[in-house]
Amino acid sequence: MGFQIESQISSCGGKLLKLQHESETTGTSMNVNIYLPQQYYKEDGAKIPALYYLSGLSCTPQNASEKAFWQPQADKFGFAVVFPDTSPRGADVPDDPENGWDFGLSAGFYVDATQSPYDKNYKMFSYVHDELPNKLDQFFKSTGSESGSTLDFLDNVAITGHSMGGFGAISGYLKQYASPRKYKSCSAFAPIANPSLVPWGKKAFGNYLGLESAQWEKYDPANLVKNISNKGNDVILIHQGTNDPFYKEQLKPHLLIEAAKGTSWEGKINLNLVDGFDHSYYFISSFVPQHAEFHAKNLGLI
Amino acid sequence: MGFQIESQISSCGGKLLKLQHESETTGTSMNVNIYLPQQYYKEDGAKIPALYYLSGLSCTPQNASEKAFWQPQADKFGFAVVFPDTSPRGADVPDDPENGWDFGLSAGFYVDATQSPYDKNYKMFSYVHDELPNKLDQFFKSTGSESGSTLDFLDNVAITGHSMGGFGAISGYLKQYASPRKYKSCSAFAPIANPSLVPWGKKAFGNYLGLESAQWEKYDPANLVKNISNKGNDVILIHQGTNDPFYKEQLKPHLLIEAAKGTSWEGKINLNLVDGFDHSYYFISSFVPQHAEFHAKNLGLI
Repeated sequence: MGFQIESQISSCGGKLLKLQHESETTGTSMNVNIYLPQQYYKEDGAKIPALYYLSGLSCTPQNASEKAFWQPQADKFGFAVVFPDTSPRGADVPDDPENGWDFGLSAGFYVDATQSPYDKNYKMFSYVHDELPNKLDQFFKSTGSESGSTLDFLDNVAITGHSMGGFGAISGYLKQYASPRKYKSCSAFAPIANPSLVPWGKKAFGNYLGLESAQWEKYDPANLVKNISNKGNDVILIHQGTNDPFYKEQLKPHLLIEAAKGTSWEGKINLNLVDGFDHSYYFISSFVPQHAEFHAKNLGLI
Repeated sequence: MGFQIESQISSCGGKLLKLQHESETTGTSMNVNIYLPQQYYKEDGAKIPALYYLSGLSCTPQNASEKAFWQPQADKFGFAVVFPDTSPRGADVPDDPENGWDFGLSAGFYVDATQSPYDKNYKMFSYVHDELPNKLDQFFKSTGSESGSTLDFLDNVAITGHSMGGFGAISGYLKQYASPRKYKSCSAFAPIANPSLVPWGKKAFGNYLGLESAQWEKYDPANLVKNISNKGNDVILIHQGTNDPFYKEQLKPHLLIEAAKGTSWEGKINLNLVDGFDHSYYFISSFVPQHAEFHAKNLGLI
């Protein structure tokens, strides 16, 4: 029921753990990376919150672990970072019959599929927001730490992500916003802000969720902001590069700003258009320090 | 004669330029990446030194550009970073007949080959230390910058590298140490410290340079320290992870410390064994901040 530690890699002041475990939710073996910051090893009795980072299309847990460079920020503020996979994998997991890279393997879209043949394995919403955090909590409670530090995967937690994962972060945050609030903080890098209206989202939602618009609305941030009340001053931080080739056709962050108008989220979606940046990890890593500080504040670390 | 700018990517406060050019030295088209820090774009009349980063076996200019994370350090101190390729490439460039990944393509070892068939293209010493810096100097002088800032690729320059590139950095530094000194500063991450005595070095030197030991000694740092006098207080900074799988068989930094004993370099090779670190970019990126500060001091930036 626990995790197998495939490798444990020294990185900055802490360690990156590459874990594997059997998921009942997806019915497959799943990979996940976790960065444990220096405070976990070096501070007596530190209480360390977790930031979940949801990756974009075509990624595994490795890409962001290697290129987003959360590690020094995690060390600076004292949070762990969880890098889940982007879909179930394995010989029995159905993929896009046309082999599109934007659907199926590496493209689970962080929803619970209801449509055959995807409904058996593609339960990424439940996996990321429920099974994974609970199992991490159990596992690290059972192993303990030499310093007496503890990791919090369930309560004092934040979420962020890139592109498909930026959508997954905002969607997961808003869907679970009601008290007790699941995530204390949410941000996104170049998210697919209104998936129901763009090619990537239509393909994924159509195949995973079927054609009823009500099913799509349950996940679409541009709909969720209309139905979930901001409790006060919660802000969603977003960065979007102006040279991102997907900005205008697939990501459309302005549609989320539009949707929030007249709702309790108006003015609370802090969209930063950054001149000249693209959709790559060069973009993500450039703004990770700002997102890290944002989450650190919301997690009570500063 | 000039460079073609393949792409220009916003990264941190500056830009990563992916360049291509025709090299007379290697007789091929060569790729090189350059990170220009924020000072180049934003400070009036800044004088910006260059740090050359030589990559290890199997790398192209992309790996370190994406994973070593020099960019924020370059922005902090105000130096440019040059990421040359690790070998000539192209259909006509001879490769290892056994397809070994540790010789031939991506494994030029930063020497000038004298043996057929490699002597036609594998002139990486002359390329990296002579043709490339001179062409970069000409190119950026001819293009100029809006801010009036200037880049120095020839005089106030430093060199570093990883593994094969760590060897290349120390070898290039020592071989050109005499007045006027080519590089003001040298460091290395897990360098192949005494290539003449280890499998990677023997294979490369044997094929590129032939079997005469005198030819190998011209490049081997463990020999060079015996024949080149330290002018005073110049220090070579080295980090080596203790969990590096190549540490004991291929890298052997202690042999360089041994070789320096009784020479003017004794005590001037600052070898830091770092517990638990491996040979990957997780290791490199963890110590890039320390190397950046070391070079920034030697380049007069702090």
